[in-house]
Amino acid sequence: MTSTRCAACKQLRRRCPSDCIFLPYFPPNNPQRFSFVHKIYGASNVGKMLQQVEEHQRADVAHSLYYEAYCRTKNPVYGCVGNISILHQEIYHLEWQLAKVEAEISLLKAQAQTEAQLAQGQQVELSPANMLADKNGVYSSLLSSFDLSTPSLY
Amino acid sequence: MTSTRCAACKQLRRRCPSDCIFLPYFPPNNPQRFSFVHKIYGASNVGKMLQQVEEHQRADVAHSLYYEAYCRTKNPVYGCVGNISILHQEIYHLEWQLAKVEAEISLLKAQAQTEAQLAQGQQVELSPANMLADKNGVYSSLLSSFDLSTPSLY
Repeated sequence: MTSTRCAACKQLRRRCPSDCIFLPYFPPNNPQRFSFVHKIYGASNVGKMLQQVEEHQRADVAHSLYYEAYCRTKNPVYGCVGNISILHQEIYHLEWQLAKVEAEISLLKAQAQTEAQLAQGQQVELSPANMLADKNGVYSSLLSSFDLSTPSLY
Repeated sequence: MTSTRCAACKQLRRRCPSDCIFLPYFPPNNPQRFSFVHKIYGASNVGKMLQQVEEHQRADVAHSLYYEAYCRTKNPVYGCVGNISILHQEIYHLEWQLAKVEAEISLLKAQAQTEAQLAQGQQVELSPANMLADKNGVYSSLLSSFDLSTPSLY
């Protein structure tokens, strides 16, 4: 045993060879990082997953395994799949907001066009957007057709 | 050995007891499901993760472990963290689009208000939005202030 053993070899109480697969990614000053992946995957599986990729990709493998193991430890039921579900909900909500705001823009543009035509004394075409406009310029019908309830989980 | 062994016990070539922890979540008709989690976590770790939660949560544990193991097999460097990164990018892009469209709405509303005041012969207040409008009603300055470059990964 040497004093420069990596976190993995230190925790597994074994000699740390100079070409240790864990050494660059699990330094001795961060034992928690190895503890998380060891608990979820086991040291042997982590070693295999590091070995099966190119050397320049191993830091990303170690980091993503650590992230997943950390999430699984904090959320034993869903792990980082729980985070994915939250992000999907957020995307659904943003897409819904964007569609709503884009519809509002279309109506405002149609209103501006109608008013410009009226100002020039032109005959106003009866488009669906024009027909929706009330005398106060409130375009409530189309906007209210959006379901304002909370989007369901998927 | 019985003919109703679960996928785990069948693959591990062992007897499948009636209270086998894997039996409800890794049925014999879907051996691939167990193969994925076995390869990434090892059967023993999967068993431990199932045992440490309430019985009604185990189906979700098995499903999320399968999802993560499947992603890791398909993407050995990033696993499902790669999916999380893509979702973050998507959210960033949607938030950017939403901010842009909301700014456009504010400008259209300001333009409509200005035109209504002009039509009524009122003095138009010099608001920043009014000051941005050129004689053709083109509000390019504020909109073009958004950075149109591709958002960076985070």
